[in-house]
Amino acid sequence: MIQEKIRMGMIGGGKNAFIGAIHRIAAHMDGLIELCCGALSSNPETAKASGRDLFLPENRNYGSYKEMIEAESRLPQHIRMQFVSIVTPNFAHFEPAMLALDHGFHVLIDKPITFTLEEAKLLERKVKETGLQLCLTHTYSGYPMVKQARQMVKEGQFGTIRKICVEYPQGWLSSASEKEGNQQAAWRTDPAKSGKSGCMGDIGTHAAQLAEYISDLQISRICADLNWVVKDRLLDDDGNVLLKFNNGANGILMASQIAAGEENALSIKIYGEKGGLEWHQEEPNTLKVKWLDAPAQLYRTGHPYLSSFAKHNSRTPAGHPEGYLEAFANIYRNFVLTLSTLHIGGSPSPEMLDFPTAADGVRGMAFIENVVASAHSDQKWHDFKI
Amino acid sequence: MIQEKIRMGMIGGGKNAFIGAIHRIAAHMDGLIELCCGALSSNPETAKASGRDLFLPENRNYGSYKEMIEAESRLPQHIRMQFVSIVTPNFAHFEPAMLALDHGFHVLIDKPITFTLEEAKLLERKVKETGLQLCLTHTYSGYPMVKQARQMVKEGQFGTIRKICVEYPQGWLSSASEKEGNQQAAWRTDPAKSGKSGCMGDIGTHAAQLAEYISDLQISRICADLNWVVKDRLLDDDGNVLLKFNNGANGILMASQIAAGEENALSIKIYGEKGGLEWHQEEPNTLKVKWLDAPAQLYRTGHPYLSSFAKHNSRTPAGHPEGYLEAFANIYRNFVLTLSTLHIGGSPSPEMLDFPTAADGVRGMAFIENVVASAHSDQKWHDFKI
Amino acid sequence: MIQEKIRMGMIGGGKNAFIGAIHRIAAHMDGLIELCCGALSSNPETAKASGRDLFLPENRNYGSYKEMIEAESRLPQHIRMQFVSIVTPNFAHFEPAMLALDHGFHVLIDKPITFTLEEAKLLERKVKETGLQLCLTHTYSGYPMVKQARQMVKEGQFGTIRKICVEYPQGWLSSASEKEGNQQAAWRTDPAKSGKSGCMGDIGTHAAQLAEYISDLQISRICADLNWVVKDRLLDDDGNVLLKFNNGANGILMASQIAAGEENALSIKIYGEKGGLEWHQEEPNTLKVKWLDAPAQLYRTGHPYLSSFAKHNSRTPAGHPEGYLEAFANIYRNFVLTLSTLHIGGSPSPEMLDFPTAADGVRGMAFIENVVASAHSDQKWHDFKI
Amino acid sequence: MIQEKIRMGMIGGGKNAFIGAIHRIAAHMDGLIELCCGALSSNPETAKASGRDLFLPENRNYGSYKEMIEAESRLPQHIRMQFVSIVTPNFAHFEPAMLALDHGFHVLIDKPITFTLEEAKLLERKVKETGLQLCLTHTYSGYPMVKQARQMVKEGQFGTIRKICVEYPQGWLSSASEKEGNQQAAWRTDPAKSGKSGCMGDIGTHAAQLAEYISDLQISRICADLNWVVKDRLLDDDGNVLLKFNNGANGILMASQIAAGEENALSIKIYGEKGGLEWHQEEPNTLKVKWLDAPAQLYRTGHPYLSSFAKHNSRTPAGHPEGYLEAFANIYRNFVLTLSTLHIGGSPSPEMLDFPTAADGVRGMAFIENVVASAHSDQKWHDFKI
Repeated sequence: MIQEKIRMGMIGGGKNAFIGAIHRIAAHMDGLIELCCGALSSNPETAKASGRDLFLPENRNYGSYKEMIEAESRLPQHIRMQFVSIVTPNFAHFEPAMLALDHGFHVLIDKPITFTLEEAKLLERKVKETGLQLCLTHTYSGYPMVKQARQMVKEGQFGTIRKICVEYPQGWLSSASEKEGNQQAAWRTDPAKSGKSGCMGDIGTHAAQLAEYISDLQISRICADLNWVVKDRLLDDDGNVLLKFNNGANGILMASQIAAGEENALSIKIYGEKGGLEWHQEEPNTLKVKWLDAPAQLYRTGHPYLSSFAKHNSRTPAGHPEGYLEAFANIYRNFVLTLSTLHIGGSPSPEMLDFPTAADGVRGMAFIENVVASAHSDQKWHDFKI
Repeated sequence: MIQEKIRMGMIGGGKNAFIGAIHRIAAHMDGLIELCCGALSSNPETAKASGRDLFLPENRNYGSYKEMIEAESRLPQHIRMQFVSIVTPNFAHFEPAMLALDHGFHVLIDKPITFTLEEAKLLERKVKETGLQLCLTHTYSGYPMVKQARQMVKEGQFGTIRKICVEYPQGWLSSASEKEGNQQAAWRTDPAKSGKSGCMGDIGTHAAQLAEYISDLQISRICADLNWVVKDRLLDDDGNVLLKFNNGANGILMASQIAAGEENALSIKIYGEKGGLEWHQEEPNTLKVKWLDAPAQLYRTGHPYLSSFAKHNSRTPAGHPEGYLEAFANIYRNFVLTLSTLHIGGSPSPEMLDFPTAADGVRGMAFIENVVASAHSDQKWHDFKI
Repeated sequence: MIQEKIRMGMIGGGKNAFIGAIHRIAAHMDGLIELCCGALSSNPETAKASGRDLFLPENRNYGSYKEMIEAESRLPQHIRMQFVSIVTPNFAHFEPAMLALDHGFHVLIDKPITFTLEEAKLLERKVKETGLQLCLTHTYSGYPMVKQARQMVKEGQFGTIRKICVEYPQGWLSSASEKEGNQQAAWRTDPAKSGKSGCMGDIGTHAAQLAEYISDLQISRICADLNWVVKDRLLDDDGNVLLKFNNGANGILMASQIAAGEENALSIKIYGEKGGLEWHQEEPNTLKVKWLDAPAQLYRTGHPYLSSFAKHNSRTPAGHPEGYLEAFANIYRNFVLTLSTLHIGGSPSPEMLDFPTAADGVRGMAFIENVVASAHSDQKWHDFKI
Repeated sequence: MIQEKIRMGMIGGGKNAFIGAIHRIAAHMDGLIELCCGALSSNPETAKASGRDLFLPENRNYGSYKEMIEAESRLPQHIRMQFVSIVTPNFAHFEPAMLALDHGFHVLIDKPITFTLEEAKLLERKVKETGLQLCLTHTYSGYPMVKQARQMVKEGQFGTIRKICVEYPQGWLSSASEKEGNQQAAWRTDPAKSGKSGCMGDIGTHAAQLAEYISDLQISRICADLNWVVKDRLLDDDGNVLLKFNNGANGILMASQIAAGEENALSIKIYGEKGGLEWHQEEPNTLKVKWLDAPAQLYRTGHPYLSSFAKHNSRTPAGHPEGYLEAFANIYRNFVLTLSTLHIGGSPSPEMLDFPTAADGVRGMAFIENVVASAHSDQKWHDFKI
């Protein structure tokens, strides 16, 4: 057990910010984290008003992240925040993260890690230099059945992996809602705020991370087809990518935000020599395991037969469904259990250390760079470069 | 928005208590509630040790609920707890609830409300007398799609309701695990701790409440078959009940804890003149709606087309599954939004007031009494009496 | 392999008869049966016109079943029909069946076997006296996964069976369609044509047979609630029955024809000491098998791991779905494989002999009698009598 | 109604031939077709023995297809066969088909139509010259819900189609079963018998035809990745293909025979501007229809709300599942209803004419040629040429 609640400061995530509210639920859920301060918007007034809604103490409700990081670093060690949670749009991740690390604070960042691959590499190097922790919220790898899948692959239950099909269709950008006042749509389709890629950056990266996380393989070559389906949109809103993995396995990654009628239908199928597995994010408590010569099995959360990693990442008995917020909370929990264990000089368990880091962030940014490069090339195969 | 976090004291729910941990997650999730004090076990040492694990301040980490209620009532109004959450086994609900009400504290109780119907009625009367609020955690009525179902029935979309089939099979008591050190199994199969009924009291009451909540009907006659399947068990572990509702509709309620291989498979089907609906707790974000002359529809959480009640009770966009803990948290949230609104002299909205109360508790206890009476009778139909 | 096609004569099933067309598809499917003659309607003109549509030779296209049975019995043995298929409404099963047996013809009858229990017993006795075969088309027991379920129960894989829940909701009689020209609805809701019970006779008997067939148990006591939901309907259109089986297991049987929005949703769940199974007629190629301590399994048709009975009753490899017509055809095929084997003096295999017989017919009629008697009694439990 | 049964001769499909038995069930099911003669194997003895098992008259149980076509063409018109069904391996389709057409017989061929694209074109030209009918058994387009999907797309219910994802994973060639006596595996992995492609020829063609059939679009460009996964296999056993359609829509086609644990999991998702659809061959009676702003719908076979094409291609009421054999039979039925209507000088309805023809065969062979060419190219996009 940890000795006291871990103190968190939040950057971004003020009024009307979708992902900020999600982060706070995830941080609160297990009663291990205290939101002690915040700089909740780039607009100082919005920041302060948002902080009051969240019951922040007046003197730690900051108008800017710079102010917060500096002020907090001057507070006594047992009072000041221990990590920052950065939940701003993509373009505003890098600077506060660097500043926080420079002031000795651990960092948690909403995905994707930065605006460019270059920034991601700089941030990774800074993390190594400071010896601090950086956690990246690739939520979907926080689900217990994803962890079960990874363990079963690692144990070789399916033999050599031969094929990985991951798809992530959404329908919410099927029309030009960015022109109709949808704020989420507006920044996600704006290259100045999102970066080089729209759909592939926003959700394709989740799909790629999921495939690599479960299979413990790395994408080594790609052939990408990006599409700009809705008229006048500046960033891709759809794409299909052929994959080759570093063990020779082949695969497909599909991501779309114009798949009308889909919600958030991330799913993955992996096939090995002896069997395969299938997982759907929208029904996350079931992992379908298929065998060459025996009936398929339904692994379910909350059972004694699961791996230690799956068990560590759930809170309820079998049949009491956990969802997206719990998967998100698992990432927060593992991160702060690690911080807390390190704080008292202990060694975090493998289960605690099982959260995405700067390395995942670098691979994610590289995925975006490589997919965009491949999409603009006439050559079929493109080597995945970092 | 509420002005400040609502302060909660917890009775029971210390180390190793399953439901206490669930209550805390539910209370923490939305950042609206502060656990300010506790009397976490009937054993004072366990209570204190548990409180330390939860970061309770030493001076509000009490050794007994009596001590807590009395001490808190002497604290200044802006500091003392505002409600107690009672998460002890069934037999230990009534006394702390009465004491809390007598000292002016609102009360939230884990279901079933009391040990006997008589106690439930006394408690209901006390609530009325004091003008305080009592909330009962019938979790399953907290799911957004359950609320959607209720609204669609209320709006008459299915015409007059004709038939209701609710079933709640679990398998975890398939063997005599109460003799093998399973603490949960031990108290739930012990008449001295659970009351007159085992399975019907523990989960049959949830099924009955769900049927009445969605349909807005009341069970008026029953014909019960209770079974004591595992050898030497003192309380029923299985049962089937024929139902008649106050509008003439018929129904079936099945509850079992020896349905080997089932997890927590509460489900309900309701049929009206024009169509029907079907909901499964283990996949709670989907409500299947069936029509006489048109394709069935899949209503899903997070969509603009849902009722205000369904929307009010979810936190994430479509396709980001919410689960049992969020349903539980909805009950806490509605309760404290009500408290907070009343606190400032406002009128809670219908959506806020939508949590189970003492009246549900009385009907639940009456359900147990009537089912047990019917089970021991040779007569087919038994009038549901309160 | 059989030596030559088996020759079938059909009684009933002319123009516009739903079930007659189904029987012919089932009989034709495997190329083992030749429709050589027919008396396809009680109206001689309709009979003849229907026969011409089916390419019957003019001289064997009969105007009445009496004429057919007598004429065919005078034909040379290698030409005359070998069995009759009786697909008339319930009230018109008994007489042609008796006459056919008296003339030495085997008999296949659409379910329920007769109009009354008394007739069923007489028919069963006649079958025994003549040494001929009688097959009853309880279609649902013809599905391969139902046979798999039966074998797994028989092998004791689930231990002692403790609970059986079978339900059969349909919605097609939700309104008074018998008054609006629906011919199927008209005779099925008419006591003079259907018998003592509507819904329980039509589909409740299928549910009861399925439960007994899979479990190899017999219903020994019942407590029935029959309902007449649609105004002015003379026969029950809905019902719920509590069950006790001869090994002490309990159960529920629900059947309804006013379950608006349901199609033909027969399903069954059986629970034993060690696990259970679940099967849904509308997705018949999957059998869900559940275990106390291990992941649930999905048994699927077409796999080498299945029992000899399941394999014998399917035609396609895994993943090529078979359905209702194939289940129906399995009953025809097993019946004619038995006839053909007996014809050459052989011993039919257990797999061939696995079709419903007069004994199932007697139990089905007894089910109707007992359910109706129980429904009209104030006493809770009613002994199942034959 | 047709006037008399249509007479069919069969080429191939003797003892132990998987697909021949399937064809016969499909042909027999509706009682519209009479198997009047056959040349059931390239080995005359096997042919004759097989014919006797199928009750063929001795004088029309032929030793070779040449003998059959010639002998039958000399029989009187009202006796001789009316069409041949060619169910030999791929390499042996072309010659008998040409010979049959030359002798005035209509032709039905198992897919793929021929061994090479060149043969397919010759055959298509011959069909045009003779004015005879050729039917190709792309079974999956015979399912009623596939037809419903096609109609809904045609009616513009989803707006312009933007994306099509079709996948066809099987697992049965996951190991080198062609070396272990599996006859089906042996010829399908042998270039001399199967042609240029294994997996893409065998099942990729089905997937492509399904996508084009439902969408009424044509594949115009492809980018193919073929894989030879099992060691020493001569033909591809897996592949992923990026697609562009002639209206600008993009897509993916995945086909695999090494997807361990999969059965025959053909499925398709199509997305338009306003919504989309999803269909799974293994649960073929449900078509999921998704909308941008409304709940998804489950269209099901057997309902009055379906299109005339869906209704024409089913035999049972809603909830009585039809499967693969019925889909196959639909193709036979539409073909012979067309023949029969033409025979009496009538005009077949659009529903009757809705079966795959030589044009589908040519596109299928072109698909194989183009995929193989693309797979061997370094260039990303390859124009689909015929």
